[in-house]
Amino acid sequence: MNVTIWNEYVHEREDGEAARIYPDGIHATIAAALADVGDVRTATLDQPKHGLTPDVLERTDVLLWWGHSAHDEVADEIVERVVERVLDGMGLVVLHSGHFSKPFKRLMGTRCTLRWRHDDRETVWTVAPGHPIAAGVPESFVIPEQEMYGEFFDVPPPDDLVFISSFAGGEVFRSGCCWTRGRGRIFYFSPGHETNPVYHQPEVQRVLLNGVHWVGPAA
Amino acid sequence: MNVTIWNEYVHEREDGEAARIYPDGIHATIAAALADVGDVRTATLDQPKHGLTPDVLERTDVLLWWGHSAHDEVADEIVERVVERVLDGMGLVVLHSGHFSKPFKRLMGTRCTLRWRHDDRETVWTVAPGHPIAAGVPESFVIPEQEMYGEFFDVPPPDDLVFISSFAGGEVFRSGCCWTRGRGRIFYFSPGHETNPVYHQPEVQRVLLNGVHWVGPAA
Amino acid sequence: MNVTIWNEYVHEREDGEAARIYPDGIHATIAAALADVGDVRTATLDQPKHGLTPDVLERTDVLLWWGHSAHDEVADEIVERVVERVLDGMGLVVLHSGHFSKPFKRLMGTRCTLRWRHDDRETVWTVAPGHPIAAGVPESFVIPEQEMYGEFFDVPPPDDLVFISSFAGGEVFRSGCCWTRGRGRIFYFSPGHETNPVYHQPEVQRVLLNGVHWVGPAA
Amino acid sequence: MNVTIWNEYVHEREDGEAARIYPDGIHATIAAALADVGDVRTATLDQPKHGLTPDVLERTDVLLWWGHSAHDEVADEIVERVVERVLDGMGLVVLHSGHFSKPFKRLMGTRCTLRWRHDDRETVWTVAPGHPIAAGVPESFVIPEQEMYGEFFDVPPPDDLVFISSFAGGEVFRSGCCWTRGRGRIFYFSPGHETNPVYHQPEVQRVLLNGVHWVGPAA
Repeated sequence: MNVTIWNEYVHEREDGEAARIYPDGIHATIAAALADVGDVRTATLDQPKHGLTPDVLERTDVLLWWGHSAHDEVADEIVERVVERVLDGMGLVVLHSGHFSKPFKRLMGTRCTLRWRHDDRETVWTVAPGHPIAAGVPESFVIPEQEMYGEFFDVPPPDDLVFISSFAGGEVFRSGCCWTRGRGRIFYFSPGHETNPVYHQPEVQRVLLNGVHWVGPAA
Repeated sequence: MNVTIWNEYVHEREDGEAARIYPDGIHATIAAALADVGDVRTATLDQPKHGLTPDVLERTDVLLWWGHSAHDEVADEIVERVVERVLDGMGLVVLHSGHFSKPFKRLMGTRCTLRWRHDDRETVWTVAPGHPIAAGVPESFVIPEQEMYGEFFDVPPPDDLVFISSFAGGEVFRSGCCWTRGRGRIFYFSPGHETNPVYHQPEVQRVLLNGVHWVGPAA
Repeated sequence: MNVTIWNEYVHEREDGEAARIYPDGIHATIAAALADVGDVRTATLDQPKHGLTPDVLERTDVLLWWGHSAHDEVADEIVERVVERVLDGMGLVVLHSGHFSKPFKRLMGTRCTLRWRHDDRETVWTVAPGHPIAAGVPESFVIPEQEMYGEFFDVPPPDDLVFISSFAGGEVFRSGCCWTRGRGRIFYFSPGHETNPVYHQPEVQRVLLNGVHWVGPAA
Repeated sequence: MNVTIWNEYVHEREDGEAARIYPDGIHATIAAALADVGDVRTATLDQPKHGLTPDVLERTDVLLWWGHSAHDEVADEIVERVVERVLDGMGLVVLHSGHFSKPFKRLMGTRCTLRWRHDDRETVWTVAPGHPIAAGVPESFVIPEQEMYGEFFDVPPPDDLVFISSFAGGEVFRSGCCWTRGRGRIFYFSPGHETNPVYHQPEVQRVLLNGVHWVGPAA
């Protein structure tokens, strides 16, 4: 399987928590976690064509997307190409603040808005234990600190709902959602704020691994 | 619309909180809340045929069901008749511990198990604000004390998921779920423990009212 | 209920079958069929702002959309407004070749392509007899001549699938599909080619009536 | 993967078409088609415990079920065990007239009735080309002769709808349906009448192979 991890790679280059937690970028941490999946590459906003040339996208079976502060800097031409590839069958895993990325909004057709506030304890619950994305994931696990994302999450009702999170403040969020669009599959997973070490957590890495397999080509 | 509210009516006859909160039974409180819907009647376990004679069921457009301690005392013959009526188009609203009632388990085909513990603060969140059952219901509302029901809730993935609840202990629950079975519609709403005044709460009454309309016959 | 029927109104003004079958436009025939629903108005492409001013859209509870040869002439500014209104809760009924209209494609996020060929006998089957849109609609009914629309129909899996059609040539099509997007509801119904008298057929009129109620505001 | 193919094995032992087409039973033909999947065994009604001892079921990852004339002869004790295993995570592929088998009806909770008549040409259309069960299956394929199964098929709305069939007589049928129940997955595929050589057809064998993988344990 050919996997491309796309990251805007902005926060981690500024002097702060993100740089401390992800010194080589979020993409590097995720790439290490997915190393056994197949041929794993990364691409970032600052590269020519954001690293997503027609060639790269053509060879990509699964694309992961992390973006936050620079959604608007992603060229519409690249967005269009990503959307077309998904409709043709490329898998897409959208992470955390990627809920507001251009490709995700285009594919959902809705506003993708949500409720949010500063960090809080998140508990992730499996509500579809027979789903391949839940394989090996505990019934529930805690992310000690994570930006709160809460309902109403303005996305189409997911085809499969795999995880629901609660926050210490009482909010809930559909944190693991699956959709099919065209011939492609999309998995959104909400944990992953840049100033928390979420992608270092084994349970999260397991979810990403399963998600990549689920959106990827049938064996 | 002809509505029948079925209640096992056991806890409220014992000397305790339930009797204090629902002196005439949970069914009486719900009947008062639904008075404007049409012709609203009640039926209880101790009546002949549990009050659900062929005649009564034939005339019933929507049946509500509250049961807990006496699920096993409901005669299989009556269960069969309720199930057949739902498949023929009668609406069914199942409440709280009714998740373990015979008709609900028969119609779901799964174990209908869940996680539970003593009372806790429940916050109900609307995750489908455009759904008719959410009409006039706030984005979120708090039930100060309610028995905790948590995931994994072993039911088929609902056709529509309207509410998700969180509890102060961190649990989550798909608290408002819709299914279609045969020509009938089913709405399950989890709040409603007998020792908490849940059915006196206006937001809950609104949900029940909307639920009855949604499972009821198309205008 | 305030209903606006939008029609590009192009084919019916040309000298041909469409003009003979719908001398005042498809919108006029549909408006007559929906007369009892409430306040029913029509709007057409050639009007200022295509008849869809902010005021009109603000007052509209349900918008019906028929377009075919002039999709590209619909101004993006109007499309945007329609999409925003749907996400805010306005109901949308999309008809026949409207599958390729700009608002529908925006809301679906997919290509909305399908297989098609010249007229053939279409048989419409109800596969969700308990759905409000199927109320009073026969188990199946025949449209003697209708442009063939066949699978694969590249739309997101519908939240509710109400009708499936077959054609004499052996093709099948998901001809009655429901989606929720934001706070709004969308119903797509495929029969309705301009050179066949489909909207004069009572069963089709019943489907449209039910569809308008289903996407419309909860009572 | 451990696969068990269960067949009532009645028709093929009588002197007729079924015996000619499936001299060693439908289960033997399917077993040959699935040989590469893993450890494939068969079980039949006439064996002790119908060949489905606790041991066999415990070791089975995916169970296929073909039954027709002897549904009532399947012991309730065995049905119960099959249902429990599915809810615990065993995959289940139900074939053709198995729509009326006891385990399927128990798991669906509905009547599972359908419309049927004598043989006719069936065309199977893929309506979810990105679904793993559709991998390598053509956009459409024809089964020259097959018992007609038509809508309304009284099952819960499938979680995924993969195939829809049409018949020369104009009927349609949701011929490839997926559900999740408990921790288990269920795939129903309708082609497979005993007097037609359906399970010898490569496209059908591919669907069964994909179905077994889809309901089977995540890799």
